[in-house]
Amino acid sequence: MSNAPASGPGDVVDEAVARRVRASFERQRFMATLGARLTTIEPGRVSIILAFRDDLVQQHGFLHAGVVTTIADSACGYAALTRMPPDAAVLSTEFKINLLAPARGESFEAVGTVLKAGRTLLVCRGEVFSVEGGDRKRIAEMLGTMMAVQRAGLTD
Amino acid sequence: MSNAPASGPGDVVDEAVARRVRASFERQRFMATLGARLTTIEPGRVSIILAFRDDLVQQHGFLHAGVVTTIADSACGYAALTRMPPDAAVLSTEFKINLLAPARGESFEAVGTVLKAGRTLLVCRGEVFSVEGGDRKRIAEMLGTMMAVQRAGLTD
Amino acid sequence: MSNAPASGPGDVVDEAVARRVRASFERQRFMATLGARLTTIEPGRVSIILAFRDDLVQQHGFLHAGVVTTIADSACGYAALTRMPPDAAVLSTEFKINLLAPARGESFEAVGTVLKAGRTLLVCRGEVFSVEGGDRKRIAEMLGTMMAVQRAGLTD
Amino acid sequence: MSNAPASGPGDVVDEAVARRVRASFERQRFMATLGARLTTIEPGRVSIILAFRDDLVQQHGFLHAGVVTTIADSACGYAALTRMPPDAAVLSTEFKINLLAPARGESFEAVGTVLKAGRTLLVCRGEVFSVEGGDRKRIAEMLGTMMAVQRAGLTD
Repeated sequence: MSNAPASGPGDVVDEAVARRVRASFERQRFMATLGARLTTIEPGRVSIILAFRDDLVQQHGFLHAGVVTTIADSACGYAALTRMPPDAAVLSTEFKINLLAPARGESFEAVGTVLKAGRTLLVCRGEVFSVEGGDRKRIAEMLGTMMAVQRAGLTD
Repeated sequence: MSNAPASGPGDVVDEAVARRVRASFERQRFMATLGARLTTIEPGRVSIILAFRDDLVQQHGFLHAGVVTTIADSACGYAALTRMPPDAAVLSTEFKINLLAPARGESFEAVGTVLKAGRTLLVCRGEVFSVEGGDRKRIAEMLGTMMAVQRAGLTD
Repeated sequence: MSNAPASGPGDVVDEAVARRVRASFERQRFMATLGARLTTIEPGRVSIILAFRDDLVQQHGFLHAGVVTTIADSACGYAALTRMPPDAAVLSTEFKINLLAPARGESFEAVGTVLKAGRTLLVCRGEVFSVEGGDRKRIAEMLGTMMAVQRAGLTD
Repeated sequence: MSNAPASGPGDVVDEAVARRVRASFERQRFMATLGARLTTIEPGRVSIILAFRDDLVQQHGFLHAGVVTTIADSACGYAALTRMPPDAAVLSTEFKINLLAPARGESFEAVGTVLKAGRTLLVCRGEVFSVEGGDRKRIAEMLGTMMAVQRAGLTD
């Protein structure tokens, strides 16, 4: 752990920030239901991976757009949380997603990146990739707004 | 059942159309995973309901935005399917959702409505309501684009 | 003018609110550049009309999507302003628009409606209609987020 | 000019493609009304610049969100057109934009980039930068869908 200011994706995030992200992720019971796992936590960038499962599909056997969206939203939300003060919690206010290709693959990675960190609103880009064999392919792109709220107003 | 052309929300949908919607919904295994159920099927309008469950929540104990989005997306997709020819399948190409209030409640209803039915693209509005006691409250609004594709290109 | 609380679209807006909306609109010099005019101002709902002009078109001779978007955005912004306290100013933070049909017609009307008025964020629906002869047709649908900011932080 | 296949941003675009883009841009009379100019045309990437003008502002003296959106939309549309067959025309079907900072500056540059080129739908990212003195700052991010249509169905 370093006391040096961590400033962007690729840098090492402060350990207290990483702990807050992991603690919040663990309270998101829907992540466990889907089998989603946090991987990278960097300043302004967080990744989540998910293995394909038969019970997560839409009518053609691909990963449901709702699952793709869920991991993109959570990756964006936690990327935003890394850029918020310690007493803040994160809420999604809105997002838009374009589904670029059928979500077929052995696993999926969502990468959330903060584009602009305001005091209240943080705008994030989310990218979702499918992984099959050695191939990695972008299957979705999200653009959304996360909000910093006081934790006192919430249940945690 | 009537052979008269059904023309819009509130009218009775053709039984063959309703069967196609139900058959596709049943193949969406993620709907069963969430416990979501189809309710209304009308021409250009479909509703889906979901009961609150502890394993579908985000970090503050509300229904995860990804679940809210999933039922809105499916309601929009099936509303679109009611307006497509019999040999078409539906794919979500993109959507945007605004989360208007914390998703707390005993159950949730997503209502998808076709705003414009083009030959290839169908634009839909999705509304999600929470139900708690006798209260029904709008908690999310979606605007998205569904695409009609030939089923031969898909697995069903 | 009535002192009774005005509560929603269709009601009469407080005159002080209407004055604030008109004063702000007049400072939007781009509205004059386009020839756009405010029409209805109701609590949570504002309309703007614009006559077709040859210098506002895209490459096929239809009204440019940017013009359609501009009047929808301004109608949403002013609908939001009717629901804000007197010392607030309005900024667009984000919006999404679906273009439902080519923007051809003699004139165009954008109607902005507040779906949810939070203290900081107000979610609005914008609808744009073309008018040609006696025909009125929806050509675009917007969903966006307006933000209430303190006017002290701005130039007015 | 090279006959070698141009494959992505940074490469030289085929001269016939560049001519189609410029010819279409010149028919967009709204671009001339705004004083917008095409700059870079690369395979899958197009830039448009616009100088600040007093008659393009919103109520606080910044460039109107509608103008920011217009140049982003056109940059995305023409980026998409570089990836379409010669007999296709481009229409915007939908887009979403996040306004990241007040649009203040001497000039503005919109950069449109194709993220995914399907046969019918092309998903694009648009970025808008303000330029003031030597500073270049991202002020908006767009994500949208462009559609390839047969030109016979249009007026050009």
